[in-house]
Amino acid sequence: MLKNGMVVLGEPMEAVESVAFGFMLPAGTACLPDGCCGASNVIADWIFRGAGDKNSRQLSDAIDGLGLVRGRSVGSSHISIGAALESGNLAEALDLYADIILRPSLKDDQFELARQLAIDEVLSLDDDPRHKVMLKLREQFYPSPLGRSTVGDIEELKALTAHISRQVVKDKFNLSQTIFTVAGKYDFDTVCERIEGLFESEQQKSVESVTLDPKQGKYTHIDNNGAQVHIGLMTGTVKPADEDYYNARVAISVLSGGMSARLFTEVREKRGLCYAVGARYHGLKQAAGVMCYAGTTPDKAQETLDCIIGEFNRLGEGITEDEITRAKVGLKSSLILQSESSSSRAGAIGSDHYILGRVRSLDEIKDKIEAISVDSVLAFLRANPFGEFTVVTIGPKQVSVE
Amino acid sequence: MLKNGMVVLGEPMEAVESVAFGFMLPAGTACLPDGCCGASNVIADWIFRGAGDKNSRQLSDAIDGLGLVRGRSVGSSHISIGAALESGNLAEALDLYADIILRPSLKDDQFELARQLAIDEVLSLDDDPRHKVMLKLREQFYPSPLGRSTVGDIEELKALTAHISRQVVKDKFNLSQTIFTVAGKYDFDTVCERIEGLFESEQQKSVESVTLDPKQGKYTHIDNNGAQVHIGLMTGTVKPADEDYYNARVAISVLSGGMSARLFTEVREKRGLCYAVGARYHGLKQAAGVMCYAGTTPDKAQETLDCIIGEFNRLGEGITEDEITRAKVGLKSSLILQSESSSSRAGAIGSDHYILGRVRSLDEIKDKIEAISVDSVLAFLRANPFGEFTVVTIGPKQVSVE
Repeated sequence: MLKNGMVVLGEPMEAVESVAFGFMLPAGTACLPDGCCGASNVIADWIFRGAGDKNSRQLSDAIDGLGLVRGRSVGSSHISIGAALESGNLAEALDLYADIILRPSLKDDQFELARQLAIDEVLSLDDDPRHKVMLKLREQFYPSPLGRSTVGDIEELKALTAHISRQVVKDKFNLSQTIFTVAGKYDFDTVCERIEGLFESEQQKSVESVTLDPKQGKYTHIDNNGAQVHIGLMTGTVKPADEDYYNARVAISVLSGGMSARLFTEVREKRGLCYAVGARYHGLKQAAGVMCYAGTTPDKAQETLDCIIGEFNRLGEGITEDEITRAKVGLKSSLILQSESSSSRAGAIGSDHYILGRVRSLDEIKDKIEAISVDSVLAFLRANPFGEFTVVTIGPKQVSVE
Repeated sequence: MLKNGMVVLGEPMEAVESVAFGFMLPAGTACLPDGCCGASNVIADWIFRGAGDKNSRQLSDAIDGLGLVRGRSVGSSHISIGAALESGNLAEALDLYADIILRPSLKDDQFELARQLAIDEVLSLDDDPRHKVMLKLREQFYPSPLGRSTVGDIEELKALTAHISRQVVKDKFNLSQTIFTVAGKYDFDTVCERIEGLFESEQQKSVESVTLDPKQGKYTHIDNNGAQVHIGLMTGTVKPADEDYYNARVAISVLSGGMSARLFTEVREKRGLCYAVGARYHGLKQAAGVMCYAGTTPDKAQETLDCIIGEFNRLGEGITEDEITRAKVGLKSSLILQSESSSSRAGAIGSDHYILGRVRSLDEIKDKIEAISVDSVLAFLRANPFGEFTVVTIGPKQVSVE
């Protein structure tokens, strides 16, 4: 950790030639002042349009000149920017990212272009109902502002100014709340020294925490005349820091962890209700849920929804040893594959630190999964039954939600 | 290679714990008899619904019990099925896949379910115009049957029977044309022995080659009342086996290889015409092209198309040293990252063998990229100028194509 509070995390990986790094900047959508939903998305573009002594063009040239395979994502809590690259170019890449984070040009004309692209991205969601239904579901499920759209709100984007956005960068790009991660092939001491030289500054104030409003409605329908009904549903469960977290993960894998999982076999394989159905854990620091998607035809929409909710409710009634074993094998298998990607590891250690305040080792996670049993999952489900469902549909036909 | 002609390829990777394998079965959409477009998609589902002495449920349980992270794709030439997994379970996984390929149950009731899901998938494309435009583009660009939809044709799927599909499996699952690949942590001799034991059989006849019809039309518009105009365009270039292949790849990277590439800077960053634009090389064994997508608003559609075609045409007029250097760095960087994923490598060596008749080493590819220069790319473009464009649009407004 630097004196200003910025956290530096690294995970060495043997026998890879690449390295991945990321900066988690505490300027996600839930951190924004009211009335500028979409500003995070605009800013994540704008800061790359010139920084330090480079204009937009020169900066793009420099980034591509180092062979960076860039990643950029906007979440509830953070704007995450980073890249994977050949390890030899890491030092130069960090120099560029220090400019982007600390000295972005933030010119007015570049703001307009970034804002216009963000508006177009919101408009394009009308042609991508599967994505749109999940954005709306997060908005309805999480207490505001946690679930704010990461793409943006069209009216608020139209009203957004360069002046306000510049102020957001100034207020929110707070190094004391920033997490830097690196994974792959690198020398930790060298990286730490470089990061210190680039980012060390005076102690900064911590960011104020957000206050949460109650959840939104229980059922929302968005009418369109498309071919399908897109169903998103979500129900609350334990947070990532909870001691029952792995019980929740295994329970969800029994529902939706593979070909043999219940949603896939009941909804897709046996009844042929839809070709796409799945549920996964979705956790923020302050709240978490099981997030489920199904795309189906209008005449099968009600049966699909009822069948999915039925499987959720049936889960607590009994689970076989075999189901638990398969769920555990599946989770461990994904973990092994994830552990071999430098980008995945850089993301995972940052997220661990933000949510848990520490980084879990792969062995710790394996042991935790290993310890789960039929009894522990059933006890968890009795203590934490799946309660109220938040449902969003997009399509030509509504469903009824009990 | 087995005595029956089946090819076995392996690439060991140091210090990974996972292994990935794949079977390329010569039953892709271009290999189908006329009138059953979509059968490959149905078959890729159907063969997993019971095989050997296991019914559908038991087979799913067994696959998940080994922790397989499955991959399945339908292409022009092949149905590819495979998985990534912990290396200790490889032998058992191969046993299951031998059943799936050689002894699938192919029951009538399971066929109906698989066919219905395939029909739903075709219908769902109406809600996914970005995907739909690219499928249509391939159909229009490639000489028939190479570009046939990998999802399927709705009328032909409705008429498809279990009897015909069973015949396709019998005729096309030809081991003499099948490629098996494995990459990651495994013992090559052990794997070869197992594959031999499972798949060795009498010499089989080779599959007849397909005859090609001329290309379809130059411009196709599909009207919908969505928010955006989705533009797909494609122009022919050299095939993967051509000696100028890497000149083509570098040329396309100058157009669309990163933030500093021409399409991104001209269409997106400077003019703000659309937030999504990109071009990539798309190669089959028999034909290849540069495939380009842009999603934009109706009022900017014509300008976007004109601007993209302008950039294609302008490319031959001059390229800077810096552009070529960045394009080369970008391609090498992607190559390094790809080389660290067992699934990517298993896919790449199979595709190499099918298209080139041999596997390129990573060093060979690096050397080939290294040898490219401004002069070699310009000479390539003079000899192979981008000619006629095939254009497909989906949206509320047509464009005009010269």
